[in-house]
Amino acid sequence: MAFYTFTEDTLRNFTISTFLKMGCSSEHAKLAADVLIKSDLRGIDSHGVARLSGYVRLWEKKRINPKPNIRIVHETPTTATVDGDAGLGLVVAPFAMKVAIEKAEKFGSGWVSVKNSNHFGIAGYHTMLALEKDMIGFAMTNASPLVAPTFANERMLGTNPMCYAFPAGKFPPVIIDMATSSAANGKLEIAQRSGKPVPDGWIQDKNGNPSTDPHELKKGGSLLPLGSDRDHGSHKGFGLSATVDILSAVLSGANYGPWVPPFVAFLEPSDNPVGEGIGHFLGAMRVDGFRPVDEFKSHLDNWIERFKSATPISPDQGVVIPGEPELLAEKERKISGIPIIDAVYDDLNEMAAKLGVKGLQSKV
Amino acid sequence: MAFYTFTEDTLRNFTISTFLKMGCSSEHAKLAADVLIKSDLRGIDSHGVARLSGYVRLWEKKRINPKPNIRIVHETPTTATVDGDAGLGLVVAPFAMKVAIEKAEKFGSGWVSVKNSNHFGIAGYHTMLALEKDMIGFAMTNASPLVAPTFANERMLGTNPMCYAFPAGKFPPVIIDMATSSAANGKLEIAQRSGKPVPDGWIQDKNGNPSTDPHELKKGGSLLPLGSDRDHGSHKGFGLSATVDILSAVLSGANYGPWVPPFVAFLEPSDNPVGEGIGHFLGAMRVDGFRPVDEFKSHLDNWIERFKSATPISPDQGVVIPGEPELLAEKERKISGIPIIDAVYDDLNEMAAKLGVKGLQSKV
Repeated sequence: MAFYTFTEDTLRNFTISTFLKMGCSSEHAKLAADVLIKSDLRGIDSHGVARLSGYVRLWEKKRINPKPNIRIVHETPTTATVDGDAGLGLVVAPFAMKVAIEKAEKFGSGWVSVKNSNHFGIAGYHTMLALEKDMIGFAMTNASPLVAPTFANERMLGTNPMCYAFPAGKFPPVIIDMATSSAANGKLEIAQRSGKPVPDGWIQDKNGNPSTDPHELKKGGSLLPLGSDRDHGSHKGFGLSATVDILSAVLSGANYGPWVPPFVAFLEPSDNPVGEGIGHFLGAMRVDGFRPVDEFKSHLDNWIERFKSATPISPDQGVVIPGEPELLAEKERKISGIPIIDAVYDDLNEMAAKLGVKGLQSKV
Repeated sequence: MAFYTFTEDTLRNFTISTFLKMGCSSEHAKLAADVLIKSDLRGIDSHGVARLSGYVRLWEKKRINPKPNIRIVHETPTTATVDGDAGLGLVVAPFAMKVAIEKAEKFGSGWVSVKNSNHFGIAGYHTMLALEKDMIGFAMTNASPLVAPTFANERMLGTNPMCYAFPAGKFPPVIIDMATSSAANGKLEIAQRSGKPVPDGWIQDKNGNPSTDPHELKKGGSLLPLGSDRDHGSHKGFGLSATVDILSAVLSGANYGPWVPPFVAFLEPSDNPVGEGIGHFLGAMRVDGFRPVDEFKSHLDNWIERFKSATPISPDQGVVIPGEPELLAEKERKISGIPIIDAVYDDLNEMAAKLGVKGLQSKV
């Protein structure tokens, strides 16, 4: 597997050009690119430009509306439902988060459930918008069904991530951004490419038997909820995933469970949808709605310091504060660039040639 | 292990008498008893009357204030911090939930962080208060440190439960009430009594080695976060537990992490606390803040129906909807009574004799 490395700017401009070619407004193209590039910078390669051709294919199938009329369709002072008008989740979710933040500014908190959207990139991007305002950020989304509930062998839920972001003082913010499955789909894709077996407890085959074959998912198998099996709490992973599904979709009027439209364009959405598009749930709470911001931040700093000093099992690996690895990646990649694996590089340039966008030039 | 079975009323009256003897008001004694009895009814034996003598011992140590002045110390229209005045969490949490519900009635949502409290019983009790108003309920609490973060062998976090409750239509509500550790402490206690080994992935010994010996916790070992190990996502369980700790305590001004005062009275709280008591976080959101209640409920019914019909791995065990087993237990125990194991029976009667409360009479 070869890598090509690009500067942030090169990838950003390429991504903006692609979204413009889809017919997005300049504002939307820049915002959507920002979400994807942030993911690459933070080392979450599965959710960055690697997904760009996927969005394009959905647009080609007319499943993404490049000029959406994103709007509030129902609200109270602190709650709202947003209709994403089949737009890119990459622009719908920041719109909804802005609504949540504005409500929080006025009333202390704001909560927005979103329907009729598409894949929103990394949840962390959206929660970080709240951090800038000294708010706590919340984001979750449902996704294409890949995960079987405990005791079932049918794919009923997405990897349905939840994200919580807390502003700290002298330390970087604590950002918990996690799939509610035992392993994220991106990790499985890496194993598929390398042909190596995955740990027990990540997947089951189509009959519900444990498996370590990363290709099992393509043969009708499923990912497993966080906890892996009943003895280890997979009913909790299922419960968390259900929470994401209900808050994101049953509450907004989006599709839920097995009805969630697939991200891959070669699979058709259900003929009998139970809602519109996919769903998200975003929220913001003012820290100073509970205690003065400087008090909260200095205690969160103390929390971070204490957890980092917890006795390590091995002297060479201490406790990792959630959000820390992503921040380290971002600092490093800002300087040394973003590595793109050859398969993604080829895919992007094939897409670019088809669209008439100037391709990426490998410098290696 | 023998069982004695009591009617709900017998246990309720015994529990009320005990709280009255502690000096609680009649209103508080009834409410606190209701929380404990609800737990026993719902089959969560570890959080019901089995804990009553624990509360009494904390009161004897003057760590529980039987006549607390529970009050709001900071607020915005939709957020508040409540000082529990060292009262029973069993009455502090319902107070805070009532505040959240009143705020939600006016503004769509309400969120309350609580400091200076004690163990609040089952989280589900508090979220269910929101269901009665067609609201979605949220509850979490931090707890005595028993769980080691990923890569550490030091107990830094409680089993820190999170609970989400959603009102359905023709079906019972969906109630996700879960410890963020791979196994709840109650399950470990059962294994300790039976002397049987526990599954791999529940605990580690004091050096951080995997163990299946349920007594390891008493020798300096720790419970593990949901996910059990890094490969299976224990960093996610750690992240969820951290979220509970931060929302419950860093936000309110309670103790967090290893500073959380122990529930057992024979262990002293820290000499250098970072806050007051333990912390909770409670919330309520009006369903009709997002869409009409009947629409939400009929879609949640559809969600439940679809998940229950997911293809089972084994024909004799289908998908379990969160909250369903507890409701079945409640229906059954309302009729046939609540079983109490002999060790708890002896403990309760020993406590009663000491306090001068009329003991439980075994009828077996």
